[in-house]
Amino acid sequence: MNLILLSDADFKSPDRALLSGRRFKHVQEVLKAPCGKTLVVGRINGLMGQATVVAQKHDSLELDVKLTSQPPEALPLTLIFALPRPPMLKRMLFFASMLGVKKIIILNFNRVEKSLWNSSALKPQAIEEQLILGLEQAKDTVMPEVVLKKRFKLFVQDELPGMIKDKLALVAHPEKKGDRYIYFKNEINVPVTFFTIGPEGGILDYEIELLKAAGCQTIDLGPRILRTESVLPFIVGKLF
Amino acid sequence: MNLILLSDADFKSPDRALLSGRRFKHVQEVLKAPCGKTLVVGRINGLMGQATVVAQKHDSLELDVKLTSQPPEALPLTLIFALPRPPMLKRMLFFASMLGVKKIIILNFNRVEKSLWNSSALKPQAIEEQLILGLEQAKDTVMPEVVLKKRFKLFVQDELPGMIKDKLALVAHPEKKGDRYIYFKNEINVPVTFFTIGPEGGILDYEIELLKAAGCQTIDLGPRILRTESVLPFIVGKLF
Repeated sequence: MNLILLSDADFKSPDRALLSGRRFKHVQEVLKAPCGKTLVVGRINGLMGQATVVAQKHDSLELDVKLTSQPPEALPLTLIFALPRPPMLKRMLFFASMLGVKKIIILNFNRVEKSLWNSSALKPQAIEEQLILGLEQAKDTVMPEVVLKKRFKLFVQDELPGMIKDKLALVAHPEKKGDRYIYFKNEINVPVTFFTIGPEGGILDYEIELLKAAGCQTIDLGPRILRTESVLPFIVGKLF
Repeated sequence: MNLILLSDADFKSPDRALLSGRRFKHVQEVLKAPCGKTLVVGRINGLMGQATVVAQKHDSLELDVKLTSQPPEALPLTLIFALPRPPMLKRMLFFASMLGVKKIIILNFNRVEKSLWNSSALKPQAIEEQLILGLEQAKDTVMPEVVLKKRFKLFVQDELPGMIKDKLALVAHPEKKGDRYIYFKNEINVPVTFFTIGPEGGILDYEIELLKAAGCQTIDLGPRILRTESVLPFIVGKLF
């Protein structure tokens, strides 16, 4: 936790907040005697700054909060990814939030097991938890927006074309041109604003055709097969 | 497992190999009745190709192996990183191997807990296991070399300068210039061949001074603090 995120509900007045729960425990364990100590804090969707511990109760800390600086700039990227299994979903949400992605679309694909859509990891509170952990790691305050799209064809045909009009939308999908793999770093000169990561096992041909018809461009991540959790920092490193 | 790695010891003749242990179990579980099926295989430090299962015993499979293609090109990068705790060490080795890094130097820093050097995760067999898992994920055969350097100053002063002479060696370390963070993608035009990732908690000033004196250049990964495991795909994405 490189920054402690405070929600509106934590604030008792503009410069006083009460810290409880997981964050309280963390501060207790790290700082032992926290009174008088200064913490790096941020207000969800607001400014970042510092807080001094002014009082300590058995289950909470009172903070004197001074918020002075803007959070880092958002990454101008909308991430679209196939719904993975819960442990990978958690990591993807954490990584996306940590890396500064502010819009996430979780999409169905043919190779997504249908039962995964009932996973408790998709509940708003479970999603929010990972997003907050990512912001606390990164030192950021701006919560990403997460949208679930359970109908691939409907989304890709009806919604996606308008969203990506005049923008560069990429899909990670290997298409060999002769023997040559396309490393996209050297071939793309306009800002990428949409990036799609398919399911384990790959994207079906007809899904690729629909994505292309919607305006997406396929791109090869290179000759090695990267594990899903590492694709996100890899492409953010490549694109920004 | 996107490729099954065969070692020299697995080969009974140039085109016959016996598959046992973890890889045998994996093939059994995935393919159920493997006889006659074709597998993607590679020979450690050799070629890649296909193998047909020609016989099945209770604890092994006999393979007819045809090796025809070169493994992907090595990443021209030497990775130097501070010894982390065992779970992170495993992930770093796996990721480095998966990404195509072929030379890894694990280095001591002041903020590395001394007891970590006795970890069983540093035993040659434990290291090799993660490297093999990485190659199997990536579809690669070339084993990375891993070197342990327990004496920071000795290594950085005596060995590093010769290794990085006339090359670009970077150290991930934030140094604000005014209010501007340096995103290195746009500012570096020569190939990077060495990249150093420090310990959690950061690199001390005197360590940075020694690294700079050896010829390294510090570089900022951006305004967000990335978790160690994600730094590696991030920088590989940036640099290659």
